[in-house]
Amino acid sequence: MRPVTLAATQMACTWDTDANIAEAERLVRAAHASGAQIILLQELFETPYFCSEQDARFFDLARSAADSRVVQHFSALARELEVVLPISFFERDGPAFFNSLVVADADGTLLGKYRKTHIPQNPGYEEKFYFSPGDTGFGVIDTRFGRIGCGICWDQWFPETARSLALLGAEVLMFPTAIGSEPEAPELNSAPHWRRVMQGHAAANIMPLVASNRVGTETASRTEITFYGTSFIAGHTGEVLSDLEVESGVATATVDLDEIGQYRSYWGVFRDRRPERYGPLMTLDGHTRRS
Amino acid sequence: MRPVTLAATQMACTWDTDANIAEAERLVRAAHASGAQIILLQELFETPYFCSEQDARFFDLARSAADSRVVQHFSALARELEVVLPISFFERDGPAFFNSLVVADADGTLLGKYRKTHIPQNPGYEEKFYFSPGDTGFGVIDTRFGRIGCGICWDQWFPETARSLALLGAEVLMFPTAIGSEPEAPELNSAPHWRRVMQGHAAANIMPLVASNRVGTETASRTEITFYGTSFIAGHTGEVLSDLEVESGVATATVDLDEIGQYRSYWGVFRDRRPERYGPLMTLDGHTRRS
Repeated sequence: MRPVTLAATQMACTWDTDANIAEAERLVRAAHASGAQIILLQELFETPYFCSEQDARFFDLARSAADSRVVQHFSALARELEVVLPISFFERDGPAFFNSLVVADADGTLLGKYRKTHIPQNPGYEEKFYFSPGDTGFGVIDTRFGRIGCGICWDQWFPETARSLALLGAEVLMFPTAIGSEPEAPELNSAPHWRRVMQGHAAANIMPLVASNRVGTETASRTEITFYGTSFIAGHTGEVLSDLEVESGVATATVDLDEIGQYRSYWGVFRDRRPERYGPLMTLDGHTRRS
Repeated sequence: MRPVTLAATQMACTWDTDANIAEAERLVRAAHASGAQIILLQELFETPYFCSEQDARFFDLARSAADSRVVQHFSALARELEVVLPISFFERDGPAFFNSLVVADADGTLLGKYRKTHIPQNPGYEEKFYFSPGDTGFGVIDTRFGRIGCGICWDQWFPETARSLALLGAEVLMFPTAIGSEPEAPELNSAPHWRRVMQGHAAANIMPLVASNRVGTETASRTEITFYGTSFIAGHTGEVLSDLEVESGVATATVDLDEIGQYRSYWGVFRDRRPERYGPLMTLDGHTRRS
């Protein structure tokens, strides 16, 4: 038996960074009080989702991991509460900018840095203006409470992310997120689609998955997005174990990583993979070509 | 607009091959009468699921595609009704045996042969005894009513199957299936897990998916399996459009392949893939190695 209690948090963000940090801390403390050991904070919670527009002044928000206020604050909180906290932040490294994440282990140690691999660019989600596609590749992180694999938001739409993390040994998949309405397609609600894609990752890779999304309506100069929350924790067959609607709050679920690992071996899907037949995955159009 | 009506059929099978063929034909005719143009028959419907045990006499059931009774019968029916029919059969080719499928186009022409890539081996699903892992790789087939990508049963558990077919240009994913209870784990019902994995494929690849599974309890000398049916058609966000429970029958749904294709382009997930970061997918354990 190796039980672990997972938590997804969700909240609204404003331009009052002190308030955002205080609210995120309140949610982490609430999750900890409910027994959570690995607690997921949402994507870029230090500020509103500035990527709703292409505005050069927002590059000033970026910091190195060492200088990031949220990284400093929440690694200290991880140490105090003895919980594992993936922390999303806007990273600057020399001339380059990334949508990044570090994981604070339960003693506050910062483990592994991950830079978002897949960068979206749709009306209202203008991330290709701000972030270079990540150069770290996928990686898993051995924490006090289990080996976790993190992607960031748009990464969650790609089966390649979840499968790569699973192959590298992840026991839990985690996705901090910022997704909501489409400013130029107000009739579109992608929330059920979003959830089913990730339920599929959990089911196909036979491991729990945590997604934390923001809530609230954020208005910028030319656009407005209502973030749809609906953060959730899926179990190893893709079932929803616990979830939220559009309130600020915490969802928790306890899973047994040993029991799930045994079921993953029994079911046999990793035994029967055939990489020699997966050539199309290494291309953009299905056709392997000579360089 | 390019509407197409898809159908999933499901039925019980016995050792009376004439009766199995007659029932499958009845279902295809019923689907056609409901307007279906691409109609999926379940896996290995010519006989009971003989793979529930390892018994050498069942190798005698295998035929070449040219000599297969079901291939002959249902390609003629495809021509008569002007429908597309993927046809699953137990294939012999010289000394080798495969779990195979050919697609009869709406004029009866046999297009592309596919040999099941991923072969299961669990108690009651003893396929590694009978079938070599397929050597064809994944392929898509241009039919009169759209470009379809077929996997066979266990292939449906692998995100690599669906993604490869999508990258090769599939517009619809189709999975003939034989899955039910686990003889040595009677408490286990994998049906919801099975469905969520494939809903995830539809959602992640933004295309409809059809799964046809058998029903009925089949008793062999040392084992008994109750096949759970629950065949379904998923839409391009992974939602269930139409499904069956455990009765013999047909489910149909009409989708617009042009509208879905436009949404797939808009959503941008194929634009943003990064094959250079997918090295772990080409391995069994996540670690690329020098040969």
